Amino acid sequence: QVRNLIAPMRPADIAELLDLMRTDERRALVEMLGPELKPEVLSELEEGVRDEVIALLDPGDIAQALAEMDSDDAVYLLEDLDQQGQQEILSQMPADERAALERALEYPEDSAGRLMQRHLVAVPPFWDVGHTIDYMREAEDLPDEFYEIFVVDPAYRPIGTVPLYRVMRSKRPTKISDIMNTEQTLIRVDTDREEVARLFEKYDLISAAVIDENDRLVGVTTVDDIVEVISEEATEDIRLMGGIVNEEAVGDSVALTARNRFSWLFVNLLTAILASVVIGLFDATIEQMVALAVLMPIVASMGGNAGTQTMTVAVRSLATRELGPLNALRFMRRELMVGVVNGILFALLIGAVGGVWFQDAMLGVVLGAAMIVNMVVAAVSGILVPMALDRMNIDPAVASSVFVTTMTDVVGFFAFLGLAAIWLM
Amino acid sequence: QVRNLIAPMRPADIAELLDLMRTDERRALVEMLGPELKPEVLSELEEGVRDEVIALLDPGDIAQALAEMDSDDAVYLLEDLDQQGQQEILSQMPADERAALERALEYPEDSAGRLMQRHLVAVPPFWDVGHTIDYMREAEDLPDEFYEIFVVDPAYRPIGTVPLYRVMRSKRPTKISDIMNTEQTLIRVDTDREEVARLFEKYDLISAAVIDENDRLVGVTTVDDIVEVISEEATEDIRLMGGIVNEEAVGDSVALTARNRFSWLFVNLLTAILASVVIGLFDATIEQMVALAVLMPIVASMGGNAGTQTMTVAVRSLATRELGPLNALRFMRRELMVGVVNGILFALLIGAVGGVWFQDAMLGVVLGAAMIVNMVVAAVSGILVPMALDRMNIDPAVASSVFVTTMTDVVGFFAFLGLAAIWLM
Ligand SMILES: [Mg+2]
Ligand SMILES: [Mg+2]
Ligand SMILES: [Mg+2]
Ligand SMILES: [Mg+2]
Ligand SMILES: [Mg+2]
Ligand SMILES: [Mg+2]
Ligand SMILES: [Mg+2]
Ligand SMILES: [Mg+2]
Ligand SMILES: [Mg+2]
Ligand SMILES: [Mg+2]
Ligand SMILES: [Mg+2]
Ligand SMILES: [Mg+2]
Ligand SMILES: [Mg+2]
Repeated sequence: QVRNLIAPMRPADIAELLDLMRTDERRALVEMLGPELKPEVLSELEEGVRDEVIALLDPGDIAQALAEMDSDDAVYLLEDLDQQGQQEILSQMPADERAALERALEYPEDSAGRLMQRHLVAVPPFWDVGHTIDYMREAEDLPDEFYEIFVVDPAYRPIGTVPLYRVMRSKRPTKISDIMNTEQTLIRVDTDREEVARLFEKYDLISAAVIDENDRLVGVTTVDDIVEVISEEATEDIRLMGGIVNEEAVGDSVALTARNRFSWLFVNLLTAILASVVIGLFDATIEQMVALAVLMPIVASMGGNAGTQTMTVAVRSLATRELGPLNALRFMRRELMVGVVNGILFALLIGAVGGVWFQDAMLGVVLGAAMIVNMVVAAVSGILVPMALDRMNIDPAVASSVFVTTMTDVVGFFAFLGLAAIWLM
Repeated sequence: QVRNLIAPMRPADIAELLDLMRTDERRALVEMLGPELKPEVLSELEEGVRDEVIALLDPGDIAQALAEMDSDDAVYLLEDLDQQGQQEILSQMPADERAALERALEYPEDSAGRLMQRHLVAVPPFWDVGHTIDYMREAEDLPDEFYEIFVVDPAYRPIGTVPLYRVMRSKRPTKISDIMNTEQTLIRVDTDREEVARLFEKYDLISAAVIDENDRLVGVTTVDDIVEVISEEATEDIRLMGGIVNEEAVGDSVALTARNRFSWLFVNLLTAILASVVIGLFDATIEQMVALAVLMPIVASMGGNAGTQTMTVAVRSLATRELGPLNALRFMRRELMVGVVNGILFALLIGAVGGVWFQDAMLGVVLGAAMIVNMVVAAVSGILVPMALDRMNIDPAVASSVFVTTMTDVVGFFAFLGLAAIWLM
């Protein structure tokens, strides 16, 4: 009965169902379907679920499925298994497929080499359209799907591309070299997939040639996989900025999730204690005037939010390359000025509120002055922290927020309580 | 000289250069290039820059460029101009192109109707491959680029698709109906582009048919535009979560940026004052024991960070549909348990630190108890706020963070100072 429900579903829908199921439900379904589970379903699963499902299947069945798949999907299924799991499956594959997969797994994680597909259509420039079409009709080893033909020289270096629609629209005697685009976007096999995605986005690519260190064509990256990369990299950045620094999936257990979150919260605990130490320096001042304790979180919180705004724009714009060497200085100047302008505005606002609330004009002045200082510090650290991390080749999404909010907390408390201490002395 | 530098550049590179330039540099370059500026460059510009550049060009030149462009790119160039600017350009276009663009502009912003391209290749199912190829070689009104052929019934309703590589690999007498995919992903013209992007990602689409309310084929959406949508929507969510609630570009002026940021900071000011009012309720307690003022930000800050973690996972998983009705309950239970577990761990840690620091065991107990309360509240609000907003069809990325951190600030201060007040009484 369940089989009849599953049978007409598209692979991506079955994969989504498996992704969303409880572990035990998933286990039951996979065991029931067994070898009936289509290989296309496997390559559409989320990473965590994929590894779980593969562990449930017979290595021989998987080996057979992998041999039929596009090489990039096969790599995706294998890459996170341990050495032994990989060997168990690879050993049951035909020698040439096996060698190709082993080579792909040697490329660094998240590189174009992992993402690319080995099968592609490459023709010499002197072929004509008719010959090319006949070749495509007869050749066996073509990719399942392709949108572009690569033109290669005798050393198998790409010299141009011809989109399929152009082949289709040209007369049979037309020479390939006459209709090829020589303006190619070539991707080195060790390029990070995020950079590959940026190239696809910038040049509106559907597929792109991947070349090795000798400029020889070794594979092709297609846009359907890039779509996933863009979405996954965005998820990664969103999570990093929200303090989810370890990979986690919605289906992870309580123990695993609690452990993953702990480390970030622990770092935050240390910075929070640091802020407390700063407050502790002024305990005598607070004792003298409790209103300071009531108002001090406002200064820290406004600085934290303003700093986060600047930092968010900086981190994302660095990732999308909207912020680069050409406009960095202009961006820094603008953010600083925005910090000054909003600092003054909010200083007036909160100065008035504080002065009226506690019937003490001078308290309002101190509050406003601390606000200006902290908003400017927020702007400066919101720009400098991500840019400095980026320079040091550290992902600015990871650590920017903790640095920025620590700065604004410490400076916020120090400026407000320090000014108050001077005043009350 | 500058002309010679620009001439060999690819349109996307020229567009990037214009995006990154200062306004006056951009103006100078555009005026120098004038009509030499290729239309492909215009459609690759950032939104803000695009509108600026269009204002510098002659409406007649633009009209001519639009008439040559794919209709989706033409819509992109027109959509943000004011009524008068649009009319000025449209009035100089050929009647049929003009009517088509006007129809496209009537679809809601960010809908598939705005994103789609009007030109496409549609054939009846009874044609054979040979006839189809001949048609493509001769037809005039084909799109610049296409990857798939749509098969339509006599009422122009799509009944299947044939990818170009399959047409190419089939013999001339093969009937189209024998090689078409009947498993189609059809997109309604009023579908939000974010939903369109999810379909492309899920089903690994290269292009998809767009249909009107009568199920008739009216256009096609292609993946190169979807790549941009995914990236832009991710940028939007990242910015919203970082408190950038108004659209802004890296090149905006100080005045505009300061104004855009102000509204969010103002909301934050109100919530910060609310937290201060809560602290103010306990001024007598703080006066009695200044250590409370020193330690209270720790409780609030840890709650804020834990709540942000949960909220971040919830918001992103809702956007990617990894979190849905099928696993919502499981997710809520897990987050709650994680809050309890980490709440207890950090209560022990900070309880010990506080107790030793101020040589007061009972103070440590109060601090630990408040920490548990706030971490649990953080988990609950981190889940419930985004899910409730999503239910109410409000983008959870917009407002979740302010609700969650207000909760954790208020509860953090109230629980800690309240427990302390009871103890000290
Ligand atoms: Mg999937
Ligand atoms: Mg991976
Ligand atoms: Mg990465
Ligand atoms: Mg693009
Ligand atoms: Mg485009
Ligand atoms: Mg692929
Ligand atoms: Mg990244
Ligand atoms: Mg728009
Ligand atoms: Mg949207
Ligand atoms: Mg996909
Ligand atoms: Mg795929
Ligand atoms: Mg397009
Ligand atoms: Mg959105």
